[in-house]
Amino acid sequence: MSRVAIIAGSGRLPAELAAALDASAMICAPDGITPDGLAVDLHFRVERLVPFMRQLDDAGIEVVSFAGPVHRMAMDPALFDPETATLVPRLLQAMHGGDDATLRAVMDVFEDFGLRVAGLAELAPGLLAAQGPLSARAPDPAETSDGRRGTAILEILSPADVGQGCVVAAGQCLAIEAFYGTDAMLAQVAGSRELREPRTGGVFVKRAKVGQDMRVDLPAIGPSTIDAAVAARLTGLCLQAGRVVVLEREETLARADAAGLALWAVP
Amino acid sequence: MSRVAIIAGSGRLPAELAAALDASAMICAPDGITPDGLAVDLHFRVERLVPFMRQLDDAGIEVVSFAGPVHRMAMDPALFDPETATLVPRLLQAMHGGDDATLRAVMDVFEDFGLRVAGLAELAPGLLAAQGPLSARAPDPAETSDGRRGTAILEILSPADVGQGCVVAAGQCLAIEAFYGTDAMLAQVAGSRELREPRTGGVFVKRAKVGQDMRVDLPAIGPSTIDAAVAARLTGLCLQAGRVVVLEREETLARADAAGLALWAVP
Repeated sequence: MSRVAIIAGSGRLPAELAAALDASAMICAPDGITPDGLAVDLHFRVERLVPFMRQLDDAGIEVVSFAGPVHRMAMDPALFDPETATLVPRLLQAMHGGDDATLRAVMDVFEDFGLRVAGLAELAPGLLAAQGPLSARAPDPAETSDGRRGTAILEILSPADVGQGCVVAAGQCLAIEAFYGTDAMLAQVAGSRELREPRTGGVFVKRAKVGQDMRVDLPAIGPSTIDAAVAARLTGLCLQAGRVVVLEREETLARADAAGLALWAVP
Repeated sequence: MSRVAIIAGSGRLPAELAAALDASAMICAPDGITPDGLAVDLHFRVERLVPFMRQLDDAGIEVVSFAGPVHRMAMDPALFDPETATLVPRLLQAMHGGDDATLRAVMDVFEDFGLRVAGLAELAPGLLAAQGPLSARAPDPAETSDGRRGTAILEILSPADVGQGCVVAAGQCLAIEAFYGTDAMLAQVAGSRELREPRTGGVFVKRAKVGQDMRVDLPAIGPSTIDAAVAARLTGLCLQAGRVVVLEREETLARADAAGLALWAVP
């Protein structure tokens, strides 16, 4: 395979991708970002994107992979080089569309430059949930049914560009993930269970948005997701096969099994 | 107009409907339900629905209107009369579908008996939000835009039979209403604003579900909704015209104006 550069955001994903690739991957990170458990070979600034892409080219990089979240960064007008400055209108326009649109615009810049942007599904499919049960316990019929209902809700909602997750218990939609993310949603459910029946049980469903750019920003779960699901008194997690990252897989599955959770993936 | 019986649930709505109708409306409530600020003429039990319908008929009632929430009631098998007992399979099946399905089944029973079930839009349209600004301040362009985005999200989500409300700020969907209702959603937003920009501003959008049974169970706002929106640092409420009840209208609008909120209704 061509030599790969990982453009690392925060969290565990960059290190897991690096471990899944061969040792020669080059680790790059925006100034100010320190990926968990991973030494950075090259820091860069978005104001100097063109010189950064040249450095990658000089290092023999042909493929670039984005891993881990990079939230909106401030740009310092004094730092732009003349070539990157010509990209500013394009980047600024994308930034109005939010983090996702900005990242897509940055990826397009890389591809226009001749660097191919590759996603996890291509480079490290083993990090993604494969179809079927991942935990020791398979889902029971009620969990399967709640998983189906949650999947249907997320598919319906997907064109609104909202919602990578929801919680369903006994057929009722307890919560839908929005701006504040998975942890906030599961905490809200945990804090609300005493208010109404059903007070226990239910499934957290996590999927990519339909049409989501597979080169980047796949939804992810990890050990803390299991803890949050348990705190919300859920008994299952239903993931989208091939579209959801399972971080720290061994630890995540161990915690699911210790709690008796059913963790499975569906198309 | 034919003589009307109000089947009263809890909350303020039954009293507001009674005030909007002429004085001859008969106020009925299930055993155990006490509507706010309204004397009940006739208590009934769902196990004795057929004798209850006969009482209505004997009193010259031709039209029945349901107002205010009635949550799932326990049924005592010993209390059924023989005629109502024949309805049990039909009611039990509906109860599996939740409160809404149960209520629809009960309304169908009334209509099969010859009593017409009428909704607020017919009997008391003045209780519903009319199109245009209701508050002193009209929405500004950012609020109008957030209201449009929220309306689009709810319309997309509607076929999933979830969500009568959502919160949008600066184009971002901060929250979607699910099982725990409006108050829980607005409290969650209030508790999350410090986590991410935008820390203030935004619009609460409230609509009926597409295809919702207009005879009953319209979404409602009231003074406490204004307080909750203010606590969530929102600056606007965008309602569906003709489909959302404004309870305690004078007080609700006074609080919105005191807080400088824009409250308006769109088709």
